[in-house]
Amino acid sequence: MTRYRLTIEYNGSQFSGWQRQENAPSVQEALEEAICDLSTERVAVTGAGRTDAGVHALGQCAHFDLEKEISPDTVQNALNAHLRPHLIVIVQAESVPEDFHARFSALARHYEYRIFCRRAPPALDHGFVWHVARKLDAETMHDAAQILLGKHDFTTFRSVQCQAKTPVKTLDCLNVSRRENEIIIYARARSFLHNQVRSLVGSLKLVGEGKWTSRDLQRALEACDRSTCGPVAPPQGLTLLQVDYPAF
Amino acid sequence: MTRYRLTIEYNGSQFSGWQRQENAPSVQEALEEAICDLSTERVAVTGAGRTDAGVHALGQCAHFDLEKEISPDTVQNALNAHLRPHLIVIVQAESVPEDFHARFSALARHYEYRIFCRRAPPALDHGFVWHVARKLDAETMHDAAQILLGKHDFTTFRSVQCQAKTPVKTLDCLNVSRRENEIIIYARARSFLHNQVRSLVGSLKLVGEGKWTSRDLQRALEACDRSTCGPVAPPQGLTLLQVDYPAF
Repeated sequence: MTRYRLTIEYNGSQFSGWQRQENAPSVQEALEEAICDLSTERVAVTGAGRTDAGVHALGQCAHFDLEKEISPDTVQNALNAHLRPHLIVIVQAESVPEDFHARFSALARHYEYRIFCRRAPPALDHGFVWHVARKLDAETMHDAAQILLGKHDFTTFRSVQCQAKTPVKTLDCLNVSRRENEIIIYARARSFLHNQVRSLVGSLKLVGEGKWTSRDLQRALEACDRSTCGPVAPPQGLTLLQVDYPAF
Repeated sequence: MTRYRLTIEYNGSQFSGWQRQENAPSVQEALEEAICDLSTERVAVTGAGRTDAGVHALGQCAHFDLEKEISPDTVQNALNAHLRPHLIVIVQAESVPEDFHARFSALARHYEYRIFCRRAPPALDHGFVWHVARKLDAETMHDAAQILLGKHDFTTFRSVQCQAKTPVKTLDCLNVSRRENEIIIYARARSFLHNQVRSLVGSLKLVGEGKWTSRDLQRALEACDRSTCGPVAPPQGLTLLQVDYPAF
């Protein structure tokens, strides 16, 4: 048996999310079908994170096992051929030790969220940004975001459907910066709760509009109460950039 | 009568190009329909340049006249409402003097061409870049590109369908740079021949691969012979960034 790790780029707008579902196209299903076309083996693909419908990835990671031994280059090229015309691309395929696990071995996950601030909506970045028709104050958002760093009970910023055992997570980085018309929010942690990044972004947007102060953000965090969260940011602005693992 | 100037962003992949055609959707037609919805007037919209099918714009400019006087803000907002769900957005609308002409008043046009260099094709930038599976040497491409600056007979780099009176144009800037996996080619001139940027990019790619030297590029320019041009680069990598006009 050989275990393979894939680094995967995908456009989330064509999928109901990462996870296989009845009657809805998922990234996981498309990958499993392509692997079956390649190897004739029916395997399960395990991802580092379950991105929601509309969320994109530049560097999602996943693993799967094959009975046959196939070179990683062949796996990459054949999967890319079989995946067409889906907008899912295998950026890298590697053979990895059998104890590697895409979800549990991950040391860090990196996400980026893009808010596009202009009266007119975007034509070229449609489907890749959250359109907000007014300017947001990136500096104030960044300063407030630093309150959220470290180990906290993030119940306020967690989907009610989240299945994690504990709402306590450690947020390592939450940077807010401006790039022309856009506000870019970069978040890094070992792992995130379901909808955590989009919940944090939705609340930070209130800070950027001047509707919330950093004190309001702190109160929302400390309340540990989902109802105190700002409106959750829409999925299309979010991209899973990268997942880090220990070197073998 | 009031003359309006529009600054327009669009995703070219949904259109057969700027220019109105029978039986194919064009940006010009979508704008003329939206203006009719707004004003009930049937008008012609004149663009700064006729982009081909698949070519995008961040800052195309166009003008049109209305009998009614409507505030530019209302024009912008109403057109954006009527243009949905087309990926065409009015970034700015202004009233301009009656002698303003989107095509003939233009002082400069700015284009960007993106080449995406990676073995695996792009998933997120699909439709916005030319995918080339090997690395290109941006520095060598840039050095060679400088040969093309200034006033030349660009017959080699001109579509056989080009209707310009003369093949002589003055190229003011042709910069080649690298941004992560991408080669970015920026071109600026008062005006361009039909397919000139894509023809230049196609030949520069041969230089970047080492198939052509800068001497080959110079010979192709001097030949004034379309058959000496490299393969024309595909449209989806090209974006019309900006058109410059005199201040009023």
